[in-house]
Amino acid sequence: MADTTKDAPSGISRRRLIGTAGATGIALGAVGAGAGYATASSNSPDQQAALTSLGADEVMFHGKHQPGITTPMQARGHLVAFDLAAGAGRKEAAALLRRWSATAERLMAGEPAGSDDTDVARDAGPSSLTVTFGFGHGFFSRTGLEKQRPAALDPLPDFFSDHLDKARSNGDLWVQIGADDSLVAFHALRALQKDARGAAKVRWQMNGFNRSPGATSHPMTARNLMGQVDGTNNPKPSESDFDRRIFVPGSGSPAWMANGSYAVVRRIRMLLDDWEKLATTAQEDVIGRKKSTGAPLSGGDETTDPDLEKTDANGDLVVPINAHARISRPDQNGGAAMLRRPFSFHDGFDADGVPDAGLLFVCWQADPLRGFVPVQRKLDRGDALSQFIRHEASGLFAVPGGTAKGGYVGQELLED
Amino acid sequence: MADTTKDAPSGISRRRLIGTAGATGIALGAVGAGAGYATASSNSPDQQAALTSLGADEVMFHGKHQPGITTPMQARGHLVAFDLAAGAGRKEAAALLRRWSATAERLMAGEPAGSDDTDVARDAGPSSLTVTFGFGHGFFSRTGLEKQRPAALDPLPDFFSDHLDKARSNGDLWVQIGADDSLVAFHALRALQKDARGAAKVRWQMNGFNRSPGATSHPMTARNLMGQVDGTNNPKPSESDFDRRIFVPGSGSPAWMANGSYAVVRRIRMLLDDWEKLATTAQEDVIGRKKSTGAPLSGGDETTDPDLEKTDANGDLVVPINAHARISRPDQNGGAAMLRRPFSFHDGFDADGVPDAGLLFVCWQADPLRGFVPVQRKLDRGDALSQFIRHEASGLFAVPGGTAKGGYVGQELLED
Repeated sequence: MADTTKDAPSGISRRRLIGTAGATGIALGAVGAGAGYATASSNSPDQQAALTSLGADEVMFHGKHQPGITTPMQARGHLVAFDLAAGAGRKEAAALLRRWSATAERLMAGEPAGSDDTDVARDAGPSSLTVTFGFGHGFFSRTGLEKQRPAALDPLPDFFSDHLDKARSNGDLWVQIGADDSLVAFHALRALQKDARGAAKVRWQMNGFNRSPGATSHPMTARNLMGQVDGTNNPKPSESDFDRRIFVPGSGSPAWMANGSYAVVRRIRMLLDDWEKLATTAQEDVIGRKKSTGAPLSGGDETTDPDLEKTDANGDLVVPINAHARISRPDQNGGAAMLRRPFSFHDGFDADGVPDAGLLFVCWQADPLRGFVPVQRKLDRGDALSQFIRHEASGLFAVPGGTAKGGYVGQELLED
Repeated sequence: MADTTKDAPSGISRRRLIGTAGATGIALGAVGAGAGYATASSNSPDQQAALTSLGADEVMFHGKHQPGITTPMQARGHLVAFDLAAGAGRKEAAALLRRWSATAERLMAGEPAGSDDTDVARDAGPSSLTVTFGFGHGFFSRTGLEKQRPAALDPLPDFFSDHLDKARSNGDLWVQIGADDSLVAFHALRALQKDARGAAKVRWQMNGFNRSPGATSHPMTARNLMGQVDGTNNPKPSESDFDRRIFVPGSGSPAWMANGSYAVVRRIRMLLDDWEKLATTAQEDVIGRKKSTGAPLSGGDETTDPDLEKTDANGDLVVPINAHARISRPDQNGGAAMLRRPFSFHDGFDADGVPDAGLLFVCWQADPLRGFVPVQRKLDRGDALSQFIRHEASGLFAVPGGTAKGGYVGQELLED
């Protein structure tokens, strides 16, 4: 695979691996068996059909930034945190990150993880698989690298509305996996878990999902399990201050975090039975936006800035004083901004038929103290939405920049 | 929506709802907002883009058989069982099935569930949503309909290898939901749960998945989480005895089950850590097929019949005596056949990092005593695969035939 670092400045460049091979009638045995897998001589004719776009879409592993940050949201996701095994230190961690990076590169190209591949992704293409690696606060003391620990990794403050399960929070290492095919994502999860054997063990693991490509006509933003358009106010890569807000500068500190980002992860349970009891207009007052379109209650369409001063005939604010859209707006938070890139989750029903469902909130920023923290402080106090959600787990991870061919994620930290 | 019963004999006919509206530049506001949802006048331009094929694919609710049996497997599935509420009887059950059928028809057409729709599926098309309803053994005594209970609903025999959790087994009513978009599937699950309020409550609920459309070049069969090609020997609708094996005849008994089928549901945990320790050749001996292609070890391709008598140079059987493919073959089981239409599942990892994953096995047959039961009896005794799997939950449900416009599923039973 060519090093496309220079061609893919934001890691969002994609190439169509195999394109329309089937449509043009080209017989590609290797395509039929899944790109990169050995061609089976006994393939039946139906196995020769080409991968269509979903399977063939490939995201580059190498680049200025790691994949899975500005790359499109995927239909399926796994979040998993590991703690270093007893006795494992810097050397073992470096070897693990080297193995993980090599596996991620292969899997994202649609190749087997290794000679002991489980074949679960066989026949499928990369399906936009991304793998993203991060380091948690505990990693640095366990590896003797305290001096390299960024101040930005200081534990998040407690919030009034937190109901955090420590067993499902934080961790020494964090991996985010996303793909448009569930088996491709599961295959990657298991391959990375196997790579960790002896060096690190799973601390917690969560599954999520988003819309499937092609299911919706609404490409910019997604809906969450409350039915709300979600992500409207996300910073856009086309905005001049996008990089400054989301990524640590190339000249940033510590040096090993150059072009990296900080991920805040929150398992946010939605109290759907309560939420769904509200009439749509009451839900819209909670959010401050029209449910159907995501447009602010003050008018316009989804992309229109809300008019926060607008009043109705009675003199009441059209966007209520405690509306989520008002309180979470960057211009209400000293310009704080983060790139939200979540997955929905649904882990079944409890004995009373209440769904264990909500949002695996993942947000990205150059500095959590100028991103997640000030916004959540405001939401924690006055957000009308807070009575319908519960933050159940939390993590904060330092996600280094991307690597060039031959390198591995975290190399500058671990070989300093 | 037109009654397409006569045009869709096996319920597998599909129509492309909106096709290539976007490609031809036709501005369809109603498409942009999701078929059937009111057109929002303030839609932003990106909302006007057409649904692509995945979202637009629609399965008919009405037909000779219920959908979700011979219709293609979907990327996402929910299985949910309900028990009738205290005090609910035949009348309440009839009203529930009428509500459920009406909701299923609307949702499968990409329309809102009702005026209190949650909007979770908004902007998306039907995404091949199917909803399938069945009745469990307990339903009939609770509704005074014991005389209508088919003998085929007699409890399944105990199997030696069963480790069944009763709380996650059986149930008065069963609903199978499948869709190619996770939010469309979740939306349907919640809408049907809401319909049940006061009449029935959730007994158990499970989530599953399959390959996404377009992720793989292998259209006939799927892979499971063991990496095996799964479903090779499924009966095909083109086979002359397909209907006889899978569906109760139109003249069958009891009359209300005409054109219906019986579903056996098993939550089959895969012991993946043990399985993945085996070399590929050892895994192939367990199954009796090549892992890469699904071809029998005796040669040929996936669709070739195994030569069960073939021996190698040492005189040993090439397909081992306890190979799963040998023991589960119809011609080894008095012609027993069932249509397997499963979902994979993955409900996270336990504290030791062991995945709670496997197969939500769903199979369809005209008579479980000539389908699942004889095959499972054989597998229970001698299948080499049995040490790598564990049956954790079980259900058996009578799934009536499909309905015509204006009717509802189970009407012939409930209004007899």
